Amino acid sequence: MNEADFIAALRGLPLHAGAGDLTDDTARLGDLILTKDLIAEGVHYLPIDPPGDVAWKLMAVNLSDLAAKGAAPVGALLGYPLGDDEWDHAFLTGLGDAAMALGCPLLGGDTIRVDGPRTLSLTAIGRAGPHVPLRRGARPRDRLWVAGIVGDAALGLSIARGQAGPDALLNAYRRPIPLLGEGRVLASVATAMMDVSDGLLIDADRMATASGCGVTIDLSALPRSPAAIAHDGDSRAARLRAATGGDDYALLFALPDGVAPPVDARCIGAFGHAPGLHVTDSGTPVGLPENLGWVHASR
Amino acid sequence: MNEADFIAALRGLPLHAGAGDLTDDTARLGDLILTKDLIAEGVHYLPIDPPGDVAWKLMAVNLSDLAAKGAAPVGALLGYPLGDDEWDHAFLTGLGDAAMALGCPLLGGDTIRVDGPRTLSLTAIGRAGPHVPLRRGARPRDRLWVAGIVGDAALGLSIARGQAGPDALLNAYRRPIPLLGEGRVLASVATAMMDVSDGLLIDADRMATASGCGVTIDLSALPRSPAAIAHDGDSRAARLRAATGGDDYALLFALPDGVAPPVDARCIGAFGHAPGLHVTDSGTPVGLPENLGWVHASR
Repeated sequence: MNEADFIAALRGLPLHAGAGDLTDDTARLGDLILTKDLIAEGVHYLPIDPPGDVAWKLMAVNLSDLAAKGAAPVGALLGYPLGDDEWDHAFLTGLGDAAMALGCPLLGGDTIRVDGPRTLSLTAIGRAGPHVPLRRGARPRDRLWVAGIVGDAALGLSIARGQAGPDALLNAYRRPIPLLGEGRVLASVATAMMDVSDGLLIDADRMATASGCGVTIDLSALPRSPAAIAHDGDSRAARLRAATGGDDYALLFALPDGVAPPVDARCIGAFGHAPGLHVTDSGTPVGLPENLGWVHASR
Repeated sequence: MNEADFIAALRGLPLHAGAGDLTDDTARLGDLILTKDLIAEGVHYLPIDPPGDVAWKLMAVNLSDLAAKGAAPVGALLGYPLGDDEWDHAFLTGLGDAAMALGCPLLGGDTIRVDGPRTLSLTAIGRAGPHVPLRRGARPRDRLWVAGIVGDAALGLSIARGQAGPDALLNAYRRPIPLLGEGRVLASVATAMMDVSDGLLIDADRMATASGCGVTIDLSALPRSPAAIAHDGDSRAARLRAATGGDDYALLFALPDGVAPPVDARCIGAFGHAPGLHVTDSGTPVGLPENLGWVHASR
């Protein structure tokens, strides 16, 4: 079964009211927002990635989920598989950097010894503001917006794998910055919000489906960086790579038509009554790519 | 580095005040108690263990940490590596059984696909009572008590590995019962409390060290089950196996001398000023075994 099947099956178990029927990336407990993201060697990061960057990314991907709910980090619990000493020490340095820079101290966790590829786990806890935007709150005629950049991380992954390219793209893959400040400001106006982790198209489709809408996205409106355009060009294929690559940790959000976002952001489409995901490029309809993003499936 | 070295290094990172300097198995956030325990295939469970039992154990080991702080379960976040469909379905059934029987609904989590041995992760959240006993609260002259049974699970592990033996011992290994009710009652009187997860001797030594005391344990006083005594005998070697086997999830706690526990429990020793762990068997000093219990170390 794949991730969606598994989550559907989990809905048959006893669920806490704060689970929101598992339709979101986070849970709610009073004014706390809880999230737990795993990253696995060979799946979410390369065995050759520097351990300090892996630690940073582990913290950043979790805090990005908090950002999408407008929550400020409170603390985190780490689940760590001991490896070799050198890796462990470098990991700790990176984790300390992230905890300091992103404002998320450690609360605790568990340490074990495992042979084979590492799976690292973090549980992050944040404090919500007065309004927590859900994934399922978008309405037909709402506009779809993105704060942050999409596409840099996927190009950075190719560079980490050995392709030549600028450090700016590599850094976007290895040291993503969760948009905590932007998320907090947006939470009060967004009708729906989530972070872009698996790919813009698949994540936008999930937001639309959860909201009972369809969504149309204009590839020509994607917020891509000058470095990405210089490196990969501005063809339709390059735009589609940016829209499906994932690992971006931009914020995807819906605003009522006519409402301007209170942070720097780009309008990339609109929700509608017609179900499904529709993609255009400067007005021309574009067929959906085979993969809209990253989906975890059974082996 | 081993687990203790890693935790010592973590203390150099930004810590939340609720981390209690990482001297306990749990963290505190307002009236919430947070814990996160991982279990790994081939380390904490056998590849041949039934997946439903693995799910039960994952939930039970986390709730046992809550029990030791006198907290009632609120909910849990699951970190799950997708495997084959049959395993996943059986796991979900066992997780549902545990959630229902132990009173801990799901709040959320994350699902990924990983090749190789599974590492399962749970974060459990509980609500504390007015008093939360720490690991470090024991004082010289306090008595050391155990609620529950020690030694059954280690014998059950041998049975799971193929040795002949009764189901009662196998069940103690595969479906441990966290002592949530006992923990809640004990929290108001215990000066220190923790669960026995890695082995009675190593865990008692940890409690004494954290408390700045030494501790003396009488092997003849250990609460062992009739099934264990029938299966493994009552020799000193059998008692030492029970005292070092781990995976018991009994509650180990300290009470002032003269105070009787409000639940069924056994006095197994006393804290003192002399540092270190001292073991006797009906009054005869016994040399410490090479392994006091389970320690996670780097490969």
